[in-house]
Amino acid sequence: MFDKNYLLPADALALIVNALPGGRPKTEKLPIEESYRRIIAVDVVSLEDLPGFSRSTVDGYAVHAEDTFGAKETSPAYLGLKYEVLMGQAPDFEVARGFAAKIPTGGMLPPGSDAVIMLEHVQPVSEDLIEILRAVAPGDNVIQLGEDIRKGETVLTAGKSLRAQDIGALAGIGVTSIEVFKKPVVSFISTGDEIVSPDSPLRPGQVRDINSFTLAGLAMNHGSIMIKKGIIRDNYEEIRKAIEESLQDSDMVLISGGTSAGLKDMTAAIINDMGMPGVLFHGVSLKPGKPMIGGVAQGKPVLGLPGHPAATVVCFDLFIKPILNRLRGLGRQPYIIRSVKATMAKNIASAAGREDHIRVSVEEKEGKLLAFPVLGKSGLITTLVKADGIVIIPQSKLGLDAGEEVTVRLF
Amino acid sequence: MFDKNYLLPADALALIVNALPGGRPKTEKLPIEESYRRIIAVDVVSLEDLPGFSRSTVDGYAVHAEDTFGAKETSPAYLGLKYEVLMGQAPDFEVARGFAAKIPTGGMLPPGSDAVIMLEHVQPVSEDLIEILRAVAPGDNVIQLGEDIRKGETVLTAGKSLRAQDIGALAGIGVTSIEVFKKPVVSFISTGDEIVSPDSPLRPGQVRDINSFTLAGLAMNHGSIMIKKGIIRDNYEEIRKAIEESLQDSDMVLISGGTSAGLKDMTAAIINDMGMPGVLFHGVSLKPGKPMIGGVAQGKPVLGLPGHPAATVVCFDLFIKPILNRLRGLGRQPYIIRSVKATMAKNIASAAGREDHIRVSVEEKEGKLLAFPVLGKSGLITTLVKADGIVIIPQSKLGLDAGEEVTVRLF
Repeated sequence: MFDKNYLLPADALALIVNALPGGRPKTEKLPIEESYRRIIAVDVVSLEDLPGFSRSTVDGYAVHAEDTFGAKETSPAYLGLKYEVLMGQAPDFEVARGFAAKIPTGGMLPPGSDAVIMLEHVQPVSEDLIEILRAVAPGDNVIQLGEDIRKGETVLTAGKSLRAQDIGALAGIGVTSIEVFKKPVVSFISTGDEIVSPDSPLRPGQVRDINSFTLAGLAMNHGSIMIKKGIIRDNYEEIRKAIEESLQDSDMVLISGGTSAGLKDMTAAIINDMGMPGVLFHGVSLKPGKPMIGGVAQGKPVLGLPGHPAATVVCFDLFIKPILNRLRGLGRQPYIIRSVKATMAKNIASAAGREDHIRVSVEEKEGKLLAFPVLGKSGLITTLVKADGIVIIPQSKLGLDAGEEVTVRLF
Repeated sequence: MFDKNYLLPADALALIVNALPGGRPKTEKLPIEESYRRIIAVDVVSLEDLPGFSRSTVDGYAVHAEDTFGAKETSPAYLGLKYEVLMGQAPDFEVARGFAAKIPTGGMLPPGSDAVIMLEHVQPVSEDLIEILRAVAPGDNVIQLGEDIRKGETVLTAGKSLRAQDIGALAGIGVTSIEVFKKPVVSFISTGDEIVSPDSPLRPGQVRDINSFTLAGLAMNHGSIMIKKGIIRDNYEEIRKAIEESLQDSDMVLISGGTSAGLKDMTAAIINDMGMPGVLFHGVSLKPGKPMIGGVAQGKPVLGLPGHPAATVVCFDLFIKPILNRLRGLGRQPYIIRSVKATMAKNIASAAGREDHIRVSVEEKEGKLLAFPVLGKSGLITTLVKADGIVIIPQSKLGLDAGEEVTVRLF
């Protein structure tokens, strides 16, 4: 039943990616507060040392470490107490040999001193004399000037998706606005004479638009902006006009629906009309998602998506997400887990020659993760609502056995 | 060095959670387009069947299944061809025994028929006669009325964080706006005479505010709104005023900094002044994060956070996140992986009696995940920038050996 000439998803994706023009996405400058999960477009080199001075990491006394060598509870060292470091101020004194200065956590290490001894390891003897109960080495309890970030050091590299701590690091070196890649704009065209908006009354034979809502959420979660172009009738001129407009005002065009054979061919013909190379594949060896169309026109990816909700989500993961990541300039990511090993709880069959994507729910039982297939046709949105992720049966396999270990790609 | 009387993080958290008043968060009604990752406040019961009629899942012919029984390529069945189902329209005819009607994918099954036979398994003989090459059973290639969602069925339950497909399901049953819990508002008070805003020039002894930026990102990612109350001098009256105001206009109060012993005591005293029960713990058996203060005043959680960036992130994960999840009404979550098994690449030591949170970077090498400790004091923001997650050394252990299997909690 599966056409042997259909490509596997990864090979089909490569056709699109290879046909896209090079170059990097446009950029915009944002306050760092608004750049969470945005992708930075430049390497950030620090113009200052962080911290800009050596600081104490504890409440205690700044000392010459050498003055404490050999000190212990049974034979303490004695140091004169003179001066106190105040928070946020540069000390205007020097610590002489044989002396200590009081210092709070975060205080600036006074000249002369090279270590801090913790409050707990010191016994006050008089107002100007303290007993040192433990030795410290030079540098103990001190963050050195530039120990966190050195002036001239590259703190973040272009292509990184900014996490909370990355924004904190930018604040720490005084960078308050940052150049990030603009979010790619994705046009979504819903086609189908049976599709109506969720707020319209339903007549027999009609169904509500599900996919534009699902895809808008997925696109938003992947750093892009979706423009809904509305629900277009199954009509060559109207669909052509919608695709033409979308190629003008967006970076990627998605056409959903067109589930009937004639409409699929029409969509493919329109993509071909839009310019070279046009349609790159029509159909993939994938379930759900077989009727997928992929092409590039005017340097922009144009995808014809199957109308079934489950197929839409699978195609998002396999095609749209990797293309979006390229359009938004995403480089190396921090290690993010998106899959988990689990044991199949039930047998499930598959046809050879195609990649089968099975929706599963995951449950923990006696410390073991079990994957339960969520049965139901790919046209059912509830199969996705009940599922936690997807198990892939590769083209070479005829199914999965209960007890078999599988990898679940989590939503 | 660690006070035996200090609680472990989980026990300290329980003190706060148990002191919070019951009741559910306030709610607001939002268009479903704006409810992505929001938490629904009500069970959603469908008022209609989805689909509202039995539909074909393929392009083909609607038939009486019985009329095809026994049909195969070598002995086809013959059916009269009459009528065609149009997309989005209710058929105004009935399929009589011995007849078939053309139907597109998604088309409404006409009265009389109970299955659809795929185009590929049919051979047209003449304009009004087709040859059936394969038998179908009743229900084949049909999504039944209500098969996705039944009228009266509970589609989503209160407390669920809405994913893209959940919003799609709401659209599918005609729900265009939904009651969700309001985002909790978190006030953040930065204290410390050494702290200056990132856009201010630095004088010796001063450092820029990192934590309010890091925490704002973390809070946003966990469905809440952070109000920065600014950087307050180390002064009883000013800090008290800021906490008092914050208790008025927010659901949770965070005070960061106060790293010096005197200021920590001052913060604790102010929390106690705000009402019962006040401070519930002061110090936890945790590194980094030992100086943490936890309390409840006027029914709201008030936390004093250590000033070190790494401690801030660890305390967010252990204390702020679970409290926020409660304040925002989060119930059972879909299976989300937040940790991964890896092998320690290096030895790392720890002190007994405390929970040690080690920052690690994760690398894949020959199909194996390795966790490398990111060394550096907890005051260094770059340790967090370089890290992918955290490995916990429990209080009972004295460290981890290279080669040992560990669980990495990913950021």
